[in-house]
Amino acid sequence: MSTVLKTDKIQEIQRLKEDQFVTRRATVFSLEEVLYDPFPVLDHGFVRVIDYMGDDSAIVQAARVSYGKGTKMVNEDKGLINYLMRHRHSTPFEMCEMKFHVKLPIFVARQWIRHRTANVNDYSQRYSILDKEFYMPSPDQLATQSTTNRQGRDEVLQGEQAAHVLNILREDALRAYDHYEEMLNEDINGTILDPSRPGLARELARMNLPVNFYTQWYWKVDLHNLMHFLSLRADPHAQYEIRVYAEVMLDILKKWVPITYDAFMDYRVGATSLSAKSLTVVKALLKGELLDQASSGMSPREWRELHQMLELEPQAVLKENKG
Amino acid sequence: MSTVLKTDKIQEIQRLKEDQFVTRRATVFSLEEVLYDPFPVLDHGFVRVIDYMGDDSAIVQAARVSYGKGTKMVNEDKGLINYLMRHRHSTPFEMCEMKFHVKLPIFVARQWIRHRTANVNDYSQRYSILDKEFYMPSPDQLATQSTTNRQGRDEVLQGEQAAHVLNILREDALRAYDHYEEMLNEDINGTILDPSRPGLARELARMNLPVNFYTQWYWKVDLHNLMHFLSLRADPHAQYEIRVYAEVMLDILKKWVPITYDAFMDYRVGATSLSAKSLTVVKALLKGELLDQASSGMSPREWRELHQMLELEPQAVLKENKG
Amino acid sequence: MSTVLKTDKIQEIQRLKEDQFVTRRATVFSLEEVLYDPFPVLDHGFVRVIDYMGDDSAIVQAARVSYGKGTKMVNEDKGLINYLMRHRHSTPFEMCEMKFHVKLPIFVARQWIRHRTANVNDYSQRYSILDKEFYMPSPDQLATQSTTNRQGRDEVLQGEQAAHVLNILREDALRAYDHYEEMLNEDINGTILDPSRPGLARELARMNLPVNFYTQWYWKVDLHNLMHFLSLRADPHAQYEIRVYAEVMLDILKKWVPITYDAFMDYRVGATSLSAKSLTVVKALLKGELLDQASSGMSPREWRELHQMLELEPQAVLKENKG
Amino acid sequence: MSTVLKTDKIQEIQRLKEDQFVTRRATVFSLEEVLYDPFPVLDHGFVRVIDYMGDDSAIVQAARVSYGKGTKMVNEDKGLINYLMRHRHSTPFEMCEMKFHVKLPIFVARQWIRHRTANVNDYSQRYSILDKEFYMPSPDQLATQSTTNRQGRDEVLQGEQAAHVLNILREDALRAYDHYEEMLNEDINGTILDPSRPGLARELARMNLPVNFYTQWYWKVDLHNLMHFLSLRADPHAQYEIRVYAEVMLDILKKWVPITYDAFMDYRVGATSLSAKSLTVVKALLKGELLDQASSGMSPREWRELHQMLELEPQAVLKENKG
Repeated sequence: MSTVLKTDKIQEIQRLKEDQFVTRRATVFSLEEVLYDPFPVLDHGFVRVIDYMGDDSAIVQAARVSYGKGTKMVNEDKGLINYLMRHRHSTPFEMCEMKFHVKLPIFVARQWIRHRTANVNDYSQRYSILDKEFYMPSPDQLATQSTTNRQGRDEVLQGEQAAHVLNILREDALRAYDHYEEMLNEDINGTILDPSRPGLARELARMNLPVNFYTQWYWKVDLHNLMHFLSLRADPHAQYEIRVYAEVMLDILKKWVPITYDAFMDYRVGATSLSAKSLTVVKALLKGELLDQASSGMSPREWRELHQMLELEPQAVLKENKG
Repeated sequence: MSTVLKTDKIQEIQRLKEDQFVTRRATVFSLEEVLYDPFPVLDHGFVRVIDYMGDDSAIVQAARVSYGKGTKMVNEDKGLINYLMRHRHSTPFEMCEMKFHVKLPIFVARQWIRHRTANVNDYSQRYSILDKEFYMPSPDQLATQSTTNRQGRDEVLQGEQAAHVLNILREDALRAYDHYEEMLNEDINGTILDPSRPGLARELARMNLPVNFYTQWYWKVDLHNLMHFLSLRADPHAQYEIRVYAEVMLDILKKWVPITYDAFMDYRVGATSLSAKSLTVVKALLKGELLDQASSGMSPREWRELHQMLELEPQAVLKENKG
Repeated sequence: MSTVLKTDKIQEIQRLKEDQFVTRRATVFSLEEVLYDPFPVLDHGFVRVIDYMGDDSAIVQAARVSYGKGTKMVNEDKGLINYLMRHRHSTPFEMCEMKFHVKLPIFVARQWIRHRTANVNDYSQRYSILDKEFYMPSPDQLATQSTTNRQGRDEVLQGEQAAHVLNILREDALRAYDHYEEMLNEDINGTILDPSRPGLARELARMNLPVNFYTQWYWKVDLHNLMHFLSLRADPHAQYEIRVYAEVMLDILKKWVPITYDAFMDYRVGATSLSAKSLTVVKALLKGELLDQASSGMSPREWRELHQMLELEPQAVLKENKG
Repeated sequence: MSTVLKTDKIQEIQRLKEDQFVTRRATVFSLEEVLYDPFPVLDHGFVRVIDYMGDDSAIVQAARVSYGKGTKMVNEDKGLINYLMRHRHSTPFEMCEMKFHVKLPIFVARQWIRHRTANVNDYSQRYSILDKEFYMPSPDQLATQSTTNRQGRDEVLQGEQAAHVLNILREDALRAYDHYEEMLNEDINGTILDPSRPGLARELARMNLPVNFYTQWYWKVDLHNLMHFLSLRADPHAQYEIRVYAEVMLDILKKWVPITYDAFMDYRVGATSLSAKSLTVVKALLKGELLDQASSGMSPREWRELHQMLELEPQAVLKENKG
């Protein structure tokens, strides 16, 4: 935590944690312990839980539209939550809500905001000055462009080439921030740098900053839409720089609603979708029949992906080429 | 409360109210006191607050994207909240959330559900049996069709005519419910009525019930969208049967976020919108110029409504006819 | 069509169909042919396509954020659309839109409206008078309550019992409508029935009508959300009375965006989701290993459902009981 | 147009414009003429209409849930549209839809995307390479930070100071793009620059680009939400760089739905909201009574703003200081 936040911020958070209140609302002890704490992500980012509404039993309570608590039995709750997750009954999960404070690079924020079913309160760069904090990839993340997937990464850059890239990123970011301050004629604390001249409007000066600079926001979302976000962003196809946020949030999810978390990992994150054609192939395989790619109606790519997913022996894949 | 709920429900709620927890979350004492209590509406309906997230200072905290609380000064909070409300900065208000349990006639539910920016968990009539509870208007609400406004009410029915209407409504509802039970071959407790024959599926039998029967749901909404709902549904143009729900929720709003409530009443509920043409007329009137309806570009109806709103003297209205 | 609509409505639609315009917009001939036509559903319902935006190639065009058309090659379009569907890239599908006019029983409308990501313009029963049209199930749909699934149907009622139910439904609906007219003191054409007395407000009188009465609305939705709606409502678990609407709309989808339709049927409607645990079982089975239910971590019910889905031999299912 | 787009893009658009189809859908001639054309905004941006659904009469048709067209009389349509706009009946306006292709600086895109009730298909910088195009403010927009409004602009920078700022912006943008290409080891056409070394992944290299670089997207929105967007973004408080987009879109709105446009300008864009307290003051003024700020309950700032809005004489404002 010490490397992520400045002392005054840490103190503000400490003061917040000292206040305790009595409530009749659904309360989750393991979450209360980490409330307001920044979970570090990347080199300067974090995720903080600011508030939450509901717990596992609130899902059951809503599903039953009940007057009291959902049920008294953990087992019964678990069965119902599994059922709801398996059959994609989303509305009871919408009855829980979480509010986060997130610090993240602008290019990550631009991916994140595409999830529209959440509430966002953004740090205004028309109104405020951005911190001198920008994302520098760690060397093991400095990947080359994938040659097979136009949207992916391949091997990691080595030696001088890596050093050169990091050098460019650092120097351009530092220069951009220096020029930002110079145009503003103001530093982060609002101190005028040169009283003899006016500063450029904040809403204009910020346009010089590259998208690896950090911004921050309050982000509030219901549990159903949080899980949808996590299922897409914790996925291996997601860009590494947003995936690490999703992974931290998965840990938070586990503290908050452990029964729902288990169901989510089984039926969503770890689950796989079999297309109608794939299902036909799997049924045939289980009956000992051998189909080839051509007769399956699947594309070569899908055929390959299905075999990888099912960890099938090479000879089954070889059939593809003969087909 | 005693007339609204049966004893077992009251006991369930009492048990819920007995549990108390320690939390670090924003907590509102005046709301904790009434948490889970049913506020009666109409003859069998109610509104219950099941959970809430945030308070007035959480709005300030979000608006500032702060690490700690919003500010320490009530006055400063009030100034900022007024500013946000006046300039329709909606996102900070979205950072608070409330979850309700509502019992309401089906025809009211059909109006309510048109507000899409909320989470709903409905009482399933495919799965469960509806209570034998239907809405009977009180005699002072038994209004005739308005002759000037096709969507409104006029005077109240009197004497025999009122009695006749109430009689129709009661008899048809009772008969419909009797037939519902007969087709189900089951009562509300799931007791089979006639073991010698099967019952009709619940999802079919329910189609016999008129829309004045009560249903219920969990309804969760953020503060911004709650205020939007209330500004439309607490309005005099809203149907009485939904307006009474909105009015109870306005009282709840006042307990929850009193500063926001004041700003909402001043800038939204009690506010009025002047069209570009109306603004021109008001400016002219303030300069002592007299416009007539024809030269204002307004329709006679708008002209009349503007004068009513401004409580202008009859002679100004008379100008309309001469114009 | 003649049984669904009255002559004056048919004439209105005919007039609409006669107008033809020249446009540069994406245009789908097979859809133009049926534009405005009512597709009958249930006994008095229908679905009409009022307008549409985009076609298969508009999805490609949006996915590429292109200046011109998406691509020129049908094959390339098909490959991309399959890819987008398989990887749940939803935004390009949101770039097509369809506007429907639907007539449907109120209890179906109440399920339908739960899909919030659509635009709805409802027939106002505060303002207008409902037609004397109510849904009567055909005898083959008069099912008994399922004993295994609290939300489902079982066998069909026979003989006298069926006749009795239909009799109840018909008589209660007719009586309710007669009383509706009597309270309104007006018929569907607005003719006053008894000039010597006032009528009850429309917004009140309608409360006497049961939920099998037909209402209607304009419903506009983007292609992604339409497919989400169809995947839930064309599902065997959906209530029959809404499923028949979804089935008609699937036919319309096929006319509109045939490539997308094929991908949708393969990757969504006909697809199945394997949970993480199920995937482990399938991999083991394909390797010739035999797992039993207990060691799979799955519940007996899930275990059974997996075997049914995979059409596995009884002995594999028998393992469950030994486990 | 020639300065905005390269020749190949212009030709693609020309080809698109040459295709003409016959349709039965609602068609707007004045919009067909400009369909696909780029309307230039800022130095490299544009707005293009790609598709649209509906026209003024489609609003009426939806409001009436009609079988044929809305009405036959333009006057009647106009009266109803004015009524709907005045009473904020939003659902009929949601029945029209427009799809845009927009090229805009990243910092403008970040404001724009905050409007969540639209469909967006973004140009992926994980997948594609950004053009070498960045926004350079024209000298008359190079404003200093406002001293009274932390979110606004004041006077324009002059002479050397202006030149210095423009120099910084240009040099930093050019250097950033050179480094972007160098890290990618690829130019905009995908030509490898140095075959002896690998290129950095696109999703990483893009992080060096400042937020004044142009991106582009397809943006689809219904008419109600488009008007909401325009009422906020064509407002004088909006940042100049997004306001110019909104202004171009207002012109497009006028071509598309001229009756709605007039109503929108009168009841929304040119309209003003009077708070409950302001309304009390206006009524008093019209009765010849003089209130002062203190007794009005308004803050000094609101009091000043009300007087400016009503163009009241200075003495009325002077009262404020005495009050």
